[in-house]
Amino acid sequence: METFDDAAKKLRQIFSDLSSEIVELKQPVMRIPLRTASNTIFDEKREILTIGQKACERRFNEMSGVRPFMQTCLLARAIYEALKNDDHPTIRDLYYYTLHTIEGTEVETFNNQDESNSIFQDIEVMTGLLREQMGVVAESRGAMVGEIVLESKGNKIDCSKFGIGAFNIPSLCDQINILEVDAEYVLVVEKDAIFQRLNDYEYWRKNRCLLITGKGQADRATRRMVRRLSDEFALPVYVLTDADPFGWYIYSTYRAGSISLSYESFRLACPKAKFLGMSMTDLEKYEIPKDHLIKANDVDIKRARELLVKDPVTKKPRYPWFCNSKQWRQEIRLFLDKKVKAEIEAKSSKGFRFLSDVYLPEKIRNKDWIK
Amino acid sequence: METFDDAAKKLRQIFSDLSSEIVELKQPVMRIPLRTASNTIFDEKREILTIGQKACERRFNEMSGVRPFMQTCLLARAIYEALKNDDHPTIRDLYYYTLHTIEGTEVETFNNQDESNSIFQDIEVMTGLLREQMGVVAESRGAMVGEIVLESKGNKIDCSKFGIGAFNIPSLCDQINILEVDAEYVLVVEKDAIFQRLNDYEYWRKNRCLLITGKGQADRATRRMVRRLSDEFALPVYVLTDADPFGWYIYSTYRAGSISLSYESFRLACPKAKFLGMSMTDLEKYEIPKDHLIKANDVDIKRARELLVKDPVTKKPRYPWFCNSKQWRQEIRLFLDKKVKAEIEAKSSKGFRFLSDVYLPEKIRNKDWIK
Repeated sequence: METFDDAAKKLRQIFSDLSSEIVELKQPVMRIPLRTASNTIFDEKREILTIGQKACERRFNEMSGVRPFMQTCLLARAIYEALKNDDHPTIRDLYYYTLHTIEGTEVETFNNQDESNSIFQDIEVMTGLLREQMGVVAESRGAMVGEIVLESKGNKIDCSKFGIGAFNIPSLCDQINILEVDAEYVLVVEKDAIFQRLNDYEYWRKNRCLLITGKGQADRATRRMVRRLSDEFALPVYVLTDADPFGWYIYSTYRAGSISLSYESFRLACPKAKFLGMSMTDLEKYEIPKDHLIKANDVDIKRARELLVKDPVTKKPRYPWFCNSKQWRQEIRLFLDKKVKAEIEAKSSKGFRFLSDVYLPEKIRNKDWIK
Repeated sequence: METFDDAAKKLRQIFSDLSSEIVELKQPVMRIPLRTASNTIFDEKREILTIGQKACERRFNEMSGVRPFMQTCLLARAIYEALKNDDHPTIRDLYYYTLHTIEGTEVETFNNQDESNSIFQDIEVMTGLLREQMGVVAESRGAMVGEIVLESKGNKIDCSKFGIGAFNIPSLCDQINILEVDAEYVLVVEKDAIFQRLNDYEYWRKNRCLLITGKGQADRATRRMVRRLSDEFALPVYVLTDADPFGWYIYSTYRAGSISLSYESFRLACPKAKFLGMSMTDLEKYEIPKDHLIKANDVDIKRARELLVKDPVTKKPRYPWFCNSKQWRQEIRLFLDKKVKAEIEAKSSKGFRFLSDVYLPEKIRNKDWIK
């Protein structure tokens, strides 16, 4: 496991090199990979979105460069101090900690949080260290249960012993050791209420799996935990969402990362994640009644079409993991043809336990998922 | 503790009385308290919002009444079946479970989810049973740590042994027994990231308290847990939010409930909850630098003014717990005068540990809160 000490050393090295150059009257340059859509590429080998080769240079001795250069150093120093003192601030804490009027001037170090957030992301791409590796805390939302034993600060945490409760996955989830796992797969559930219902039925015990929810669009920690379970324990990962483009998008973020934050994918995306359902073909196969379907709205249709679009400049698909998959193309075209969507709860028309006792075990047994 | 059996019995009683009347060719009437703003009253003795005496009658043998009468019975039967089978569906599950075309007609039992949600709430007010008492699961969000031992499904859950993680409070939190508490107060934190930071510093251990977050506007389960800790263990409850009207509103929901869901307050509101901060007077007292304050926007100002408004019809304050408190009036007027707000993280200008090591212990020691 990487330590915060490693991150502190790396940070110190990069910035002390820059400061030596200043002392030696050289012209220090920061090389910062561009976090733009045009510099987002799909790494076909690793099957994740990643950041490309384009970069900008930030110079200490140029009018346009000196302010962001100063801001970058200021924020990096604060991150370094926090690391050395075992503090784990948020990005907002770092903003307020470094915000002040520069002595002898009326100039503020930052004009607003957006500015400091952007500089913070520059530091992430420039150093190759994500915020969690630098001990910076973000909001978290996810929960987990199942036969998995964790260790944090000397405590053993057995996630099979929470009853109707669950383990709340913290932001710095890499600081948690996974001691033991006794499960055959990971079931990632979009909706918290479905997670709670499956937990209540002890679905995870009966089906030997781990149950995770990101409570809607997943937070970083939940994604990281899913990725770790895939990497460290070679567990298959299945994602369960509503049958609609928003559900696909949630799956997509687990699987490949997001376009705006492609530089995070190398730690957060889980390319092996499969879409278990609910699929458009399930609607017929499981005879979901017509009145249980919802008419797709314009946003749904726009979103679905986008998934099949090619970039006008590069001529490459924007979402290759959808576009290059025959199964996915069929799924999306079926949706665009029928223009209906369905909630996972629609399965309750067949009884409250249909989802847990029939649908899920059957889908997994039959390998009835979309890759 | 009330059991689901008790709820099932109560439900059965009410509806079997109605059906006997139908069999006996009487004219059955459902009396449903009105869930309107005009039927929301402030119970001065209990200091919570509650539902008033106004009610509507729903008749089986009236054209306008027969459809909602049917819907109410249909949904109540589904709730009853779920209770008897130890199923804990969501409101959405109940909708899909009961949705169908009525035999021999082209009429749907419900036109949409909004309709079924409204009927569901009618059942709640009509029976006096909240959804959780009927075993109906809602989305949950909250987390808790500290010296508290819980029991669920035969498992003992020690919330002081989660390391940087936390216990995820489930929707049906009344199904959890609280076995032991060793704490002097409950600190409710608006923001999850602040909760995680305080947990990381083990604030709860050093200050002998329980730490809870609802991650923004609190979900029902978090509010219920806070209320239980106040009721069952007589623990003082302090709420920590940003210094702005949205923070006050979050506090307000913990304390008195919300106007639109006043019928829930009798179980979810915690009238003894005190607002610990960050207060407007704190901004000066703790010398938050001017550039760390944020200009209030129109929504903030509108919201703040609303808190002091009297209802044009009843001439009574809409938010008496704000209006009738000298401290709160001062706080709100100070805000409307200065028109600035501040985030809790602004305290990091004095160091990352200022919040946990200075501000919070000092505020609590000096009883520097707003009632």
